Amino acid sequence: MNTPAVADFRNYPLISALTAVQPLADRLHVQWADGRLSPFHHQWLRDNCPCPECVYSVTREQVLEIVDVAEDLVPNTSLVDAQGCLCVEWQNGHQSRFDPGWLRAHAYDEASRAERFEAKPKSQLWTANLQLPVFEYHAIMEDPKALLQWLLALRDIGLTQVRGVPTEPGSLAGIAKRISFIRESNFGVLFNVQSKADADSNAYTAFNLPLHSDLPTRELQPGLQFLHCLVNDAVGGESVFVDGFAIADALRHEDPEAFRSVCEIPVEFRNKDRHSDYRCLAPIIALDTLGQVREIRMANFLRGPFDAPAEQMPALYRAYRRFIAMTREARFRVSARLSPGDMWCFDNRRTLHARNAFDPATGARHFQGCYIDRDELLSRIRVLQR
Amino acid sequence: MNTPAVADFRNYPLISALTAVQPLADRLHVQWADGRLSPFHHQWLRDNCPCPECVYSVTREQVLEIVDVAEDLVPNTSLVDAQGCLCVEWQNGHQSRFDPGWLRAHAYDEASRAERFEAKPKSQLWTANLQLPVFEYHAIMEDPKALLQWLLALRDIGLTQVRGVPTEPGSLAGIAKRISFIRESNFGVLFNVQSKADADSNAYTAFNLPLHSDLPTRELQPGLQFLHCLVNDAVGGESVFVDGFAIADALRHEDPEAFRSVCEIPVEFRNKDRHSDYRCLAPIIALDTLGQVREIRMANFLRGPFDAPAEQMPALYRAYRRFIAMTREARFRVSARLSPGDMWCFDNRRTLHARNAFDPATGARHFQGCYIDRDELLSRIRVLQR
Repeated sequence: MNTPAVADFRNYPLISALTAVQPLADRLHVQWADGRLSPFHHQWLRDNCPCPECVYSVTREQVLEIVDVAEDLVPNTSLVDAQGCLCVEWQNGHQSRFDPGWLRAHAYDEASRAERFEAKPKSQLWTANLQLPVFEYHAIMEDPKALLQWLLALRDIGLTQVRGVPTEPGSLAGIAKRISFIRESNFGVLFNVQSKADADSNAYTAFNLPLHSDLPTRELQPGLQFLHCLVNDAVGGESVFVDGFAIADALRHEDPEAFRSVCEIPVEFRNKDRHSDYRCLAPIIALDTLGQVREIRMANFLRGPFDAPAEQMPALYRAYRRFIAMTREARFRVSARLSPGDMWCFDNRRTLHARNAFDPATGARHFQGCYIDRDELLSRIRVLQR
Repeated sequence: MNTPAVADFRNYPLISALTAVQPLADRLHVQWADGRLSPFHHQWLRDNCPCPECVYSVTREQVLEIVDVAEDLVPNTSLVDAQGCLCVEWQNGHQSRFDPGWLRAHAYDEASRAERFEAKPKSQLWTANLQLPVFEYHAIMEDPKALLQWLLALRDIGLTQVRGVPTEPGSLAGIAKRISFIRESNFGVLFNVQSKADADSNAYTAFNLPLHSDLPTRELQPGLQFLHCLVNDAVGGESVFVDGFAIADALRHEDPEAFRSVCEIPVEFRNKDRHSDYRCLAPIIALDTLGQVREIRMANFLRGPFDAPAEQMPALYRAYRRFIAMTREARFRVSARLSPGDMWCFDNRRTLHARNAFDPATGARHFQGCYIDRDELLSRIRVLQR
């Protein structure tokens, strides 16, 4: 038997032994040694049969399609075998055998689902007194454990600084590739943040840039943003960060009506030059299926005119002003000035960033940036944790 | 005055002249020559002031933040000037002047909003009798009008074939770049679809591949998929397509309860090998804020065990089976076999694709593929339409 534990690169330790199986009309009730009772519908069990006929062992991908099995299929027999596995023989003779560790990890009784939900990584909200997580370039490049610590901070806190990055242009690509490939955008694979006469974004001026996420103009905003300081001789240009999730959380409690407006009323963001014209219509705060904040989308300088029913307009402006005002409150803001060789890496869909105005007459300022998506971050963490 | 019409690369023709302005407590009521009445809140007007102090003329991005203006700001005067523009002088002396074409294009009275909604491109649903939109490689590469026609077919129909593409490996990159940069994934910038002994996906076997979208394992599935046939000597391997939007539409009408289940109950898709471990939890059908189908996410061979409350499980299986059964119905399916030099390009988030099993013993089969996101498609269309 090709055990599913090996098949999907995860381990499914035995949490509790299977002690009994009770057949019902459309499911089995499985009894565990620790007292838990888990229902498994016949459909679900047949669908998840791990035998080599149902799953191709090389790719570990399913070949069976459940629609090819009778909807009312029931077991002839179901029992716990000598190795503690659940064995089901189906009416048509097909046999399925389930490892108890795997079965427990995928049980969908209420207690098992609640346990899995609890075990999910949670965002650690932060405010002005954040102890900034700082990491060393060489450790990240050489030590998988240090790399993992950095990635967990990115996932859970969403703001990190890396020190000791070589100041040769392009160096940030090396550290980004410790995670995965870089996500290209219409601004390139790597982008240079410098004041330019022919700027195609306010980012490429010396202006104050209010707190924002990058590329809210796209359906999927980039997940991680890297900003690497090569030269920073100009007066001004400090970086400012806020935890957008902490602000959303405060807004939800302090002004639930405003929270609802920014979650529900879509806003257009756009970026356009001679060669491109990006537009995205989406709410400022996006919630996941459980009602938890999944992302913040915000860049006042890229926002289009509000387009909402007239009766919603006052509420939308009230909520928008409230949100912006909160991003300016000292209680949320972390500020720091980078030196050459320092690099910010943060969750662009959570941690809003700003730049104070700088004076290009006082010296050069050159940052390089790039993006990597959350999917790559989470994949890399899972592989490092195997 | 820096006219906003120039500033954002769009044209705002004069649809109807402004005839009168009536000041109310929190808004102006603007009267148009064709009888329409549009409310514009003071906040909205001040927020959208196009003067060079509020919008940086080089980047065409807003410098003003509305939170810096008093919430109860009201005009001293508001009038239609000799050029037909709406002129507002605010209490603090700031002056805003709005082009009537721009103002009409952004009016948010009910009729104007309904007009804009009506003018939005609509998906043209198709079934088995689709007249396949076919385009010529040379025309797309050389003629911007032919390019635009192809892109509009991709946006509105979601399935196209291109003929006459050179059969040198990598040729599809040239045609993809007529749209924009290519979206990389963990399978590379270009991927080779060939039967492999060490396959890390069922796509790289000779198996029948049931109807699916690519990379449902990612938060954002790739928008456009290119599949270019270089060699096709093996027996079998025909391509099959269905319009996922047409199936969703049929499901909504024929089985509203099943439709609701696949829209609401999230399903996990995953792809894992020695170097990566991608997982995404999302419903099979995603709706936009207006309740219209925005995307289909489906690949049975990448699906994880259903994880839903036990009482939802029978409904989820019933809905899933129904959806899969519909993808197999002849009324929806279009099938064709590519010859070398032919290329499919389709909306991967709408048009599900399948491959019949082929026999690698009968000859070689080599396709190359790549992805581009919907954002790039839409941006390119907007630029070509300027």
